[in-house]
Amino acid sequence: MDTTALGVLLGRYSLGPKHLGEPGPDDAALQVMLLAALRAPDHGGLVPFRFAIIRGAQRLAFADLLERAAVELGKAEAAAALDRERALRAPVTLAVLARIDLGHPLAPGHEQWMAVGGAVTHLLTAAHALGYGGKMLSGSKVRSPNVVAAFCAPGETLVGWISLGTPLRAASPGHTKRVPDGLMADWAGPDASG
Amino acid sequence: MDTTALGVLLGRYSLGPKHLGEPGPDDAALQVMLLAALRAPDHGGLVPFRFAIIRGAQRLAFADLLERAAVELGKAEAAAALDRERALRAPVTLAVLARIDLGHPLAPGHEQWMAVGGAVTHLLTAAHALGYGGKMLSGSKVRSPNVVAAFCAPGETLVGWISLGTPLRAASPGHTKRVPDGLMADWAGPDASG
Repeated sequence: MDTTALGVLLGRYSLGPKHLGEPGPDDAALQVMLLAALRAPDHGGLVPFRFAIIRGAQRLAFADLLERAAVELGKAEAAAALDRERALRAPVTLAVLARIDLGHPLAPGHEQWMAVGGAVTHLLTAAHALGYGGKMLSGSKVRSPNVVAAFCAPGETLVGWISLGTPLRAASPGHTKRVPDGLMADWAGPDASG
Repeated sequence: MDTTALGVLLGRYSLGPKHLGEPGPDDAALQVMLLAALRAPDHGGLVPFRFAIIRGAQRLAFADLLERAAVELGKAEAAAALDRERALRAPVTLAVLARIDLGHPLAPGHEQWMAVGGAVTHLLTAAHALGYGGKMLSGSKVRSPNVVAAFCAPGETLVGWISLGTPLRAASPGHTKRVPDGLMADWAGPDASG
């Protein structure tokens, strides 16, 4: 792994629970990741997020919760069991809770969501820099009433979960992203449209 | 500056146009920053953003546009002149255009906004790693009809502008962020609320 700053920024990739093993990040590593999250741009400094750590014995309660939610959402038993398995596998999972104030006078809602995305990005990149792998996961379960009740305080939105652990495999060449055309081009000026 | 990966992630700070000088990032540097932006988590790989580069002689047209928008928004002449000055000062400015598909079956709108925020974050952190400073700016001008018409293709939202250049000063201790309480704590389990 290229451990320079640019190497880490350009080399980060998502690694799901099935490719993660022990150990997960300890308290010291999680604290560094949180500090990195707080360094992402955040208009107005609202810190519109928090993280709930799921580890150790709590993984079982988390797995039960997700399996039940999957069944309630009409998933087949095998698919629900897979959700359970995934929830158990990552050594550490962080639930991502957003706290969006849609009436904020300075930062509109979409800027607050951008701040949440920036924080998650920096957190995952810091995990990568520390030698851990991880991935942000979401899906319809984040809107399942029992799951919401188990994570959210009033006014909070459950965004999803960040699985974290030690990578069981390196990035494959398939992780190299193609750059879509036209992503960065000179402004055509005020009289052109677009 | 601490140039290690963690040093860059924990040391990034926003630096506005008045603290930026020549040179700005050249094409090679902008390309690296774009590649870093593409490494941020992006559910579904939608790449819901693009960047328009404002540099060189186009800065004058950009400054005219922002000054006029400020006047139209009812700003005093001195404030409008300051907007003009800011637009001229940064060697390179990137307009950030979001392309949000609210009907996407996999990634809801807020996840797409998170992807935009992650991309902007990684782009700014890569700029920092390359020795440049920058800041994401927005405000009511992003909704000014003439400004929108000058930047947006159909379906796009103008998020704001990233000012980029060479830092004219280092980070002051004031840039060290306090960590709010309760930002990361163990999950209380399914039966506790929150």
